[in-house]
Amino acid sequence: METCDLLLGGSYLLAMDDGDTRIRNGAVAVRGGRILEAGSFERLKKAYAPAETIWHEDSVIMPGLVDAHTHETLTRGLHEDLPLMRWLEEVCYPIEGQYCPEDLYAAALMTQAELIRGGVTTFIDIFRFAGEAIRAVRQTGLRGIFTPQFFDATEDTLESIDRTVELIKTYHGTEDGRVSVWFGPHAPYSVSPERYRRAAELAGKLGAGIHTHLCETEDEVRTVRQRYGMDPVAMMQEAGVLDVPCVLAHCIYLTDSNIRLLAEKRDTAALVYNPISNLKLADGIARVPEWLKAGCTVGLGTDSNLSNNGLDMFNEMRIGGYMQKTFNHDATIMPCGQMLRLATRGSAAALKMEDKIGSLEAGKCADVIAVSLKKPHLWPIYYENPSNIVEQLVYSARASDVITTVCNGRVLMDNGVLRTIDEEEVFAFVQERAASLYARSFPGRFPCTEKPPAD
Amino acid sequence: METCDLLLGGSYLLAMDDGDTRIRNGAVAVRGGRILEAGSFERLKKAYAPAETIWHEDSVIMPGLVDAHTHETLTRGLHEDLPLMRWLEEVCYPIEGQYCPEDLYAAALMTQAELIRGGVTTFIDIFRFAGEAIRAVRQTGLRGIFTPQFFDATEDTLESIDRTVELIKTYHGTEDGRVSVWFGPHAPYSVSPERYRRAAELAGKLGAGIHTHLCETEDEVRTVRQRYGMDPVAMMQEAGVLDVPCVLAHCIYLTDSNIRLLAEKRDTAALVYNPISNLKLADGIARVPEWLKAGCTVGLGTDSNLSNNGLDMFNEMRIGGYMQKTFNHDATIMPCGQMLRLATRGSAAALKMEDKIGSLEAGKCADVIAVSLKKPHLWPIYYENPSNIVEQLVYSARASDVITTVCNGRVLMDNGVLRTIDEEEVFAFVQERAASLYARSFPGRFPCTEKPPAD
Repeated sequence: METCDLLLGGSYLLAMDDGDTRIRNGAVAVRGGRILEAGSFERLKKAYAPAETIWHEDSVIMPGLVDAHTHETLTRGLHEDLPLMRWLEEVCYPIEGQYCPEDLYAAALMTQAELIRGGVTTFIDIFRFAGEAIRAVRQTGLRGIFTPQFFDATEDTLESIDRTVELIKTYHGTEDGRVSVWFGPHAPYSVSPERYRRAAELAGKLGAGIHTHLCETEDEVRTVRQRYGMDPVAMMQEAGVLDVPCVLAHCIYLTDSNIRLLAEKRDTAALVYNPISNLKLADGIARVPEWLKAGCTVGLGTDSNLSNNGLDMFNEMRIGGYMQKTFNHDATIMPCGQMLRLATRGSAAALKMEDKIGSLEAGKCADVIAVSLKKPHLWPIYYENPSNIVEQLVYSARASDVITTVCNGRVLMDNGVLRTIDEEEVFAFVQERAASLYARSFPGRFPCTEKPPAD
Repeated sequence: METCDLLLGGSYLLAMDDGDTRIRNGAVAVRGGRILEAGSFERLKKAYAPAETIWHEDSVIMPGLVDAHTHETLTRGLHEDLPLMRWLEEVCYPIEGQYCPEDLYAAALMTQAELIRGGVTTFIDIFRFAGEAIRAVRQTGLRGIFTPQFFDATEDTLESIDRTVELIKTYHGTEDGRVSVWFGPHAPYSVSPERYRRAAELAGKLGAGIHTHLCETEDEVRTVRQRYGMDPVAMMQEAGVLDVPCVLAHCIYLTDSNIRLLAEKRDTAALVYNPISNLKLADGIARVPEWLKAGCTVGLGTDSNLSNNGLDMFNEMRIGGYMQKTFNHDATIMPCGQMLRLATRGSAAALKMEDKIGSLEAGKCADVIAVSLKKPHLWPIYYENPSNIVEQLVYSARASDVITTVCNGRVLMDNGVLRTIDEEEVFAFVQERAASLYARSFPGRFPCTEKPPAD
């Protein structure tokens, strides 16, 4: 009998591989952070002598979810329902300017605890003090791409291209490949074409990539057109961004020819659908069915606790699909299988990790979750019905139904208990840092004396 | 010291009364199913000798949520993403026709377990075999209005006005007022004006009400116009429905004058917003901000596991608000305080129970929940910030964050453990009934051989 580190099994295994393998009473055997085999639990139990065996009756074993665009913020639910520019200028920017490294470390621990609890094993983050987020991820055990977010206005004083180069040299590819560092130019209206070009060149040279916001609002498109005589996608193309690995968040205001170009660039460029953030901020509805039809590489992301306000990828799948149904007046569009694929293999491809994660196959990284179905809101179950399990996962499950999260072969959570961090300590530390950040951001007052109406 | 049955407290009490009372470290004292007092936990602890004391640090004590339109169905996640008419005709109707009383009893137990877990203490249900749903609610301890759903086509063989009259005589107002029975004519295209009129007359005579679907699709409005030369709202008015307590679900396709009329009838007629069902079925977006501006009585509802696919009123508040923001291109519209009010006092008023439930006030029914905030997806918390708690509840909380549910003074759940039903038994019973129902509905085959595309 071969030894292995972990045997993780449940009543239904969804491999999400090319053949759409599904195994009743299935399991994965894991060694050295990799999947040895996905197969019948009974057979694998006989074939391997695992150091740890986890079995969850009435659970689905599936690939860890991949959040293809998020920010690790410390605050949430602060002075909502304001007009976007007032909210940004009076609430978000003052806070952002006051972040110190310890605040970001706290934010990263809390964000990553939420991701682990919600079955997200890989994410790409764009925010401040990436070194602190990396400090957290080394501890939590998740897989992440960190992209320090820089702006022209603050490039000399805060995050910058040069500092990102240093982080790439220090951390890119470390922790058995769990940690990557890419460039994070904020957006085409806040970063110049020259800086985009320099970041793209360096990304190519250093084997990294670019993570940016693109075409999130009509205002952005108008501003960029006025300033540079071209739309934001053309600006990205001119700067060489589309020819290196690049993750383009939001992409709501694309022209038909933008979509055609991004489809041609599918091997390097990926578009990310951020449905709930787009809804909340009233940004608009991305033309995702057209992206997919054109052949673009497409991922799914949460965008952050500030703009969502949560990192529940199950809700993102469900609401993201439903939004498209309503906006396209077609209840058949973006079916649940497609949404699940976006949240796993789609996002994996967007992050250029399709050969490592996104499905349960021998040789891939052991990023695996178990989702419990034994809940009144997920019951009854029709295991023998080939469509029911995916329908339950996408249309009824919540982040809180994840009971086991494994990343790179390490059990980060089982039975709802986090193994790599002391959650009570994190709660206390986060609360302390958040109170301090808030007090520094708004000394002696709340920012919004004018409350939105209660009715 | 006065005795009482229960003292339930937490770090923040949100009374949802007219004065928007909020108490740091607050509690409610309960006796005989009624609220004696809402106040400081420390003070109430000294004033009362409770039979049971529950305290949850970092939780919000608030009124139980009210689901103003749902169906207690047994199945969910079956053959989704089909065109609406195919889904109804090939999947839903065959199942519906095969329900036997035991199936509906199972459906009601499962639905009510989900509602208790999600902090819903009152709901209005429209479906089959209401006697079985009432059998379940007597056991679970929830508060419900049951409205046997009748159609012209099956009035003689299944649910009917006459059978509803019998149920009203047997159950209306029983269980200390927890159980009500109203009439449930399905919709203006499936029930004749004569039957609506007869139901309205009987509702007036028997002190009951009417629960119906209205203006859910453009097709419905077209059909009714062609058939009767008037729109569905006019048909309701002609039949006298708007002059008795009536709950009108969906109401997506209303004219301006429909809205004005329904506002005039606000003391009897209520409109229900069902945002997630409307999104999923691609029905359209209800003009809720205009309903509210006109002064209509408005509630919030989930619509069912078949069409949603869940009964999470927190998600309903959040997505319902976000949808309006996007469709109205205005991030300030329908702020979180307003959504929370719809889910509590709004729905209570819609069900004509505003004097009994919807807020924590002395003399009202003790329908109270505790929502835990000690979760990574709800952290940090700013208790001293007057807007943060409501923002957290509406924009970040989930049904699964409810830890305590009290209805009519009885603790139905605490610390996530159901007290009135044996959940394991319910899981087994529901699974058995669901398998049988499915086999009877689709003997020897799955209904949909043609699967929707995976990509």
